[in-house]
Amino acid sequence: MSMKWTSVLLLIQMSCYFRSGGCGKVLVWPAEYSHWLNMKAILNELVQRGHEVTVLTSSASILVDPSISSSIKFEVYPTSLTKDDFENVFGKLVDTWMYDLPKYSFLTYFSKVQEILWKYFECIRNLCKDIVLNKKLMDKLQTSKFDVILADPAGRPTTFSETMGKAEMWLIRTYWDFEFPRPFLPNVDFVGGLHCKPAKDLPKEMEDFVQSSGENGVVVFSLGSMVSDLTEERVNVIASALAQIPQKVLWKFNGKKPHTLGPNTRLYKWIPQNDLLGHPKTKAFITHGGTNGIYEAIYHGIPMVGIPLFVDQPDNIARIVTKGVALRVDFNTMSSTDLLNALKTVINDPIYKENAVKLSRIHHDQLVKPLDRAVFWIEFVMRHKGAKHLRAAVHDLTWFQYHSLDVIGFLLACVATVIFTITKCCLFCFQKFAKTRKKGKRE
Amino acid sequence: MSMKWTSVLLLIQMSCYFRSGGCGKVLVWPAEYSHWLNMKAILNELVQRGHEVTVLTSSASILVDPSISSSIKFEVYPTSLTKDDFENVFGKLVDTWMYDLPKYSFLTYFSKVQEILWKYFECIRNLCKDIVLNKKLMDKLQTSKFDVILADPAGRPTTFSETMGKAEMWLIRTYWDFEFPRPFLPNVDFVGGLHCKPAKDLPKEMEDFVQSSGENGVVVFSLGSMVSDLTEERVNVIASALAQIPQKVLWKFNGKKPHTLGPNTRLYKWIPQNDLLGHPKTKAFITHGGTNGIYEAIYHGIPMVGIPLFVDQPDNIARIVTKGVALRVDFNTMSSTDLLNALKTVINDPIYKENAVKLSRIHHDQLVKPLDRAVFWIEFVMRHKGAKHLRAAVHDLTWFQYHSLDVIGFLLACVATVIFTITKCCLFCFQKFAKTRKKGKRE
Repeated sequence: MSMKWTSVLLLIQMSCYFRSGGCGKVLVWPAEYSHWLNMKAILNELVQRGHEVTVLTSSASILVDPSISSSIKFEVYPTSLTKDDFENVFGKLVDTWMYDLPKYSFLTYFSKVQEILWKYFECIRNLCKDIVLNKKLMDKLQTSKFDVILADPAGRPTTFSETMGKAEMWLIRTYWDFEFPRPFLPNVDFVGGLHCKPAKDLPKEMEDFVQSSGENGVVVFSLGSMVSDLTEERVNVIASALAQIPQKVLWKFNGKKPHTLGPNTRLYKWIPQNDLLGHPKTKAFITHGGTNGIYEAIYHGIPMVGIPLFVDQPDNIARIVTKGVALRVDFNTMSSTDLLNALKTVINDPIYKENAVKLSRIHHDQLVKPLDRAVFWIEFVMRHKGAKHLRAAVHDLTWFQYHSLDVIGFLLACVATVIFTITKCCLFCFQKFAKTRKKGKRE
Repeated sequence: MSMKWTSVLLLIQMSCYFRSGGCGKVLVWPAEYSHWLNMKAILNELVQRGHEVTVLTSSASILVDPSISSSIKFEVYPTSLTKDDFENVFGKLVDTWMYDLPKYSFLTYFSKVQEILWKYFECIRNLCKDIVLNKKLMDKLQTSKFDVILADPAGRPTTFSETMGKAEMWLIRTYWDFEFPRPFLPNVDFVGGLHCKPAKDLPKEMEDFVQSSGENGVVVFSLGSMVSDLTEERVNVIASALAQIPQKVLWKFNGKKPHTLGPNTRLYKWIPQNDLLGHPKTKAFITHGGTNGIYEAIYHGIPMVGIPLFVDQPDNIARIVTKGVALRVDFNTMSSTDLLNALKTVINDPIYKENAVKLSRIHHDQLVKPLDRAVFWIEFVMRHKGAKHLRAAVHDLTWFQYHSLDVIGFLLACVATVIFTITKCCLFCFQKFAKTRKKGKRE
């Protein structure tokens, strides 16, 4: 099973060493964008419980900001790459994903994506080199004697089982409110929504705008942390749809103000998304389908309109559409009417709200909260120096053992030997019999 | 996958109806012997949490005793079978399993077991008839409007997936301290050891006997609730092995006192097994390998000698032998020396105690205790009228859909059509070409 790096969500790998009991030392190898947001929630909880947390990050990191917390240690290593290099690669990738599919044949599109992916992997490879060839850093890490490594694998292309085989425990950032039920191994736990919290108060200006919506309420709209700009044509299509609804709209958008923008819509460079989705006036959420946003909507029971852009987003939207809490529109081909109709339906047809509330009840009805489960497993691995009792034997098998080829080979060899022996015996008996008959005839 | 009724442990099936919120009405369809002991632990907890629990049992039940609790309701239905009929069938089954394998060829043994199993299934079928044809009882059950059914399926021979498909949630009476890691579906929870508790004080006479063992400590010996008698020869082999160890022995045994019984060994018709295994003087446990006894030993960290007798017991013992907490001896072929050596090894080689303590630590290090998880899921099914979000789509597929035969069939039909069309076209072109050539030649 090959692991598409793009569709893999937060998978936390823990390989554990040393000490046990009490508080431990945790080394963290984070990923960028939404993955870092989940990781931060776990790290804050670990620090609160008295663990010593060190995040290993490069000087070129986009979102991993050492100034966010005084209680988390940051080990920032120098790299020849710059933050701009990184952002350029991500930006090109996002642009290609979003706009190039309708422009080119599938093969050309695929090779363009592949080309940028290789550039991205080259960056990651350089970062890895900058760590392992940095003798001073490596010495420091080795003498630090960490109990556990928390890694967010976004990983050169590798196989799923190869990466999985090295981890003691996997924490998946989804749950069964969102996933389709399927078998999983005991060293996997589903901790989706671990970053969600009850809503806090909004900033005064925003609260006033939300309250001004009256009974119609508001719609929250965000395309996530990776997309900052859109083409003017698409922006106007979206804005003119939003202008036609009776709700007020809060739109997280960084680009030029579209000329079709209605008076009911306000643009924000940043929005307190979780607090907005938890606001009693919020009627719907327009989302690109990142798991973090979807989980905030599930947590607060808000129906959605999905505009998936790339990687795992079409999959994610397909899931919530199946659960009956969302409708999907296509970013590249939708008209204003398409978006308008989808919005009107999820807001006015009560079944969407009902399903969203049902999903929210399932999400909240867990014996232990996802964040506490994540922290429990990290501490478990430290306490027991691993989680060997949960590790399936499959990880220690070669591919021919996994497919029982050694057993089948042995059985085939047995059958072949038996057939060979029987044939030889028959042949021998037949020759003997033929000889005797010949002799008899001669006499 | 066919379900051997004998190897299936406590699988609690819940199909849920009606009401939600607060306290619910639970209907219980129990099984006999050790399964009933686990079920009782769950029912007591449910009653303590304010639920109304009704156990449906026949007048011929062996262990399900309406006098055990005033807070659990018992709906005892009349049946033409007697308790003796039931005990006879079980007794014959146990005798055949224990003694007949070495006496007969495997085929004869197998057909003897099969014959008694059919008698057993006949009894169960009669019980079922006695319920569904009892109009008064059925009316009463239907008007009672239960929220959930708790069933312990032992079940006519049926397929695993058929039974599984009907349940909202499955509670398996093992856990990963005991099981080999393998994939499982999200509507399965492993609640092994739910009946285990910290040890209570022993009866005075027993405590005195245990204390008299001094530093050597004691050995606890039980072959479970189903085996009440053994052949004289086997009993003497066992007794003479026990007579040779420096420990005192507490042996749960109902039969005639063996003449080789040593002064260090006392026979008891019943022992408080969990309290004995949790006693600080207990050095080892000799067990037939029922999951309840094994879990009490895991809970208290006690090494074991396994004498598996039938059904799932050889499997269970194989597991704990692999975990390094037990040795196995064969009931029919062991000599006194075999049993003696096994006992000496698990008591004197410290690795067995170390492994048992390690397993015990893993067992106790769970976020939520098994009994609380079992109760949570029962209440969850009542609150949400099922657990549909955990139900894999596989249960709604036919066998040919499950094996993708419909998809493969369709694809094969497509390929066949394409090949047929191409062949026809080629043939047509060839004929045309041949005709033209003939014409050309003629001209």
